[in-house]
Amino acid sequence: MEKIALAVEAEELTEFWSQRVLARANGNLFKVAKGIGSTTWHIHEDQEETFLLLSGRLTVQLRTGDVELEPGDLFVVPRGVEHCPLAAEEARFLLVGPEVTSTAAGGKPAWSADGGTPPSV
Amino acid sequence: MEKIALAVEAEELTEFWSQRVLARANGNLFKVAKGIGSTTWHIHEDQEETFLLLSGRLTVQLRTGDVELEPGDLFVVPRGVEHCPLAAEEARFLLVGPEVTSTAAGGKPAWSADGGTPPSV
Repeated sequence: MEKIALAVEAEELTEFWSQRVLARANGNLFKVAKGIGSTTWHIHEDQEETFLLLSGRLTVQLRTGDVELEPGDLFVVPRGVEHCPLAAEEARFLLVGPEVTSTAAGGKPAWSADGGTPPSV
Repeated sequence: MEKIALAVEAEELTEFWSQRVLARANGNLFKVAKGIGSTTWHIHEDQEETFLLLSGRLTVQLRTGDVELEPGDLFVVPRGVEHCPLAAEEARFLLVGPEVTSTAAGGKPAWSADGGTPPSV
């Protein structure tokens, strides 16, 4: 039973749009991630995806309009709702959900997996 | 689908150690609370209780020792583990768990329900 400093965990991430599992509780995973640029548009048909922004700014693009997140903002993407996170500069966030989303389901862009440079936003 | 500013929600709380439900996702509730002084020692036999400190300092007292939380720290109290949160000054935090803990199960002190003044810590 140890506390987890979210900022420290986020600082140690090496790959954009990957999720690092920090804790498990009541069937949900608490994950930290960082992003820059955007993922692809995608849907989680079987789960809500909860974002809690830690630093930077994150735009959760929805087909119905954008939601602009600042640090300390919580946002739940309902299951079945298409979305596409977008960060003009590096954003760090906590994700809460029942499992680690796959690369495909999470919409992780191809450049993020090979250590490549993110395209300009 | 709207974002939730945790600091704003915490600011609006009127009662210490009460929990305000902000969102539901994947069978879990996201709740905000504030505390000062301490609750009573208590156990949740059927659920983990996850704390994410937003402001102030919070000591999660355990029978095995204290865990000192600072803003941005995440801590999961495993089910069945006796604990007693303690805040020397007002602390605000996010709680994640499957339901709102009852007054008894949550260890909320008697003074918190009647608008009374918290005892000195």
